Amino acid sequence: MTNEFQVHQPSPILIVVSGPSGVGKDTVVQRMKERGLPFHFVVTATTREKRPNETNGKDYWFVSKDEFARMIEENELIEYAVVYGDYKGIPKSEVRDALASGKDVVMRIDVQGAETVRKLVPEALLIFITCDSEEELERRLRERKTESSDSLSLRIATARKELQRIGAFDYVIVNRDFHLDDTVNKVRSIIEAEHLRVQHRKVNL
Amino acid sequence: MTNEFQVHQPSPILIVVSGPSGVGKDTVVQRMKERGLPFHFVVTATTREKRPNETNGKDYWFVSKDEFARMIEENELIEYAVVYGDYKGIPKSEVRDALASGKDVVMRIDVQGAETVRKLVPEALLIFITCDSEEELERRLRERKTESSDSLSLRIATARKELQRIGAFDYVIVNRDFHLDDTVNKVRSIIEAEHLRVQHRKVNL
Repeated sequence: MTNEFQVHQPSPILIVVSGPSGVGKDTVVQRMKERGLPFHFVVTATTREKRPNETNGKDYWFVSKDEFARMIEENELIEYAVVYGDYKGIPKSEVRDALASGKDVVMRIDVQGAETVRKLVPEALLIFITCDSEEELERRLRERKTESSDSLSLRIATARKELQRIGAFDYVIVNRDFHLDDTVNKVRSIIEAEHLRVQHRKVNL
Repeated sequence: MTNEFQVHQPSPILIVVSGPSGVGKDTVVQRMKERGLPFHFVVTATTREKRPNETNGKDYWFVSKDEFARMIEENELIEYAVVYGDYKGIPKSEVRDALASGKDVVMRIDVQGAETVRKLVPEALLIFITCDSEEELERRLRERKTESSDSLSLRIATARKELQRIGAFDYVIVNRDFHLDDTVNKVRSIIEAEHLRVQHRKVNL
């Protein structure tokens, strides 16, 4: 064996799954987990209320605002943002431990946070999830029972702004209704292809 | 529908499958054809002798040296090269017609030719096929009954040189023995991923 033949990406890739609220990025990552794909899924810390179907430490780390403030103070977060009045952030330790395990690491982050990660980790792989049309996005946001009518119009306005940030991402996937597995397969193809790139995305965190 | 949502790569991609002689690039493209993958496969023109299992117009266009000279004179080739004393070249008309059909276009070219295509068509997608080790490559070249012992040593020396050209390619796939379909699946993933890139590879030929 010579070195010329050791050509595959040897180190794990840091994958950010992002997109406007309502495009289904949570569902995409959820389905990736259900299918047992060999990734490490980072758990985000948030100060928002737990929804009935969510589990602490699995869907999110639900923490108090005081605890979140401490994490910010002690520089424990890779990124954090205020989203609709709630704080969300990725603990650095989660990402470092995950990369050390050798598995590819998947993070679900809002658009604002994805751009922060890009600055900190230029080698990160940024995937933008979107949907077929603006009407479709509005319909999905409307169907979410968890939002008040105020926060709906706010989310629609934010989503419109976020759609203009596609250029900052590497890949974009249209997550069509009833085609969730297609979307997940596309994420897989992207990650498989990235491991075959001649220019590696070796993460230095 | 707004424009922000028309995000997939709308135009066909020009894919070059390349690599040193003996790594199995012909077999890879052959299997892609057998599996009925939805690509247009460009047929190369060559002045070399037809092998018993080959068909004119399907595997290659087998042309005389005079005819090949005419094609060069009249600038009808996208690239051409002398390979082990024989001429091989891609007719421009084949590629233009193929792209116009809307399908992705696959070309099998030697390493030298792939680099020529890169200069002419910077948006081309260059895939380098290699094998597990130098010993494996030598064994494969040795097993080919079509080569004289002279041309074998020449091919090994050339292959060694060509392995150093990986840096000029976009992706590299190790085509392992008995894993041909894995290799083809990787090619498919790469092409699928490339259609999802935010920066499109729109070909201007």
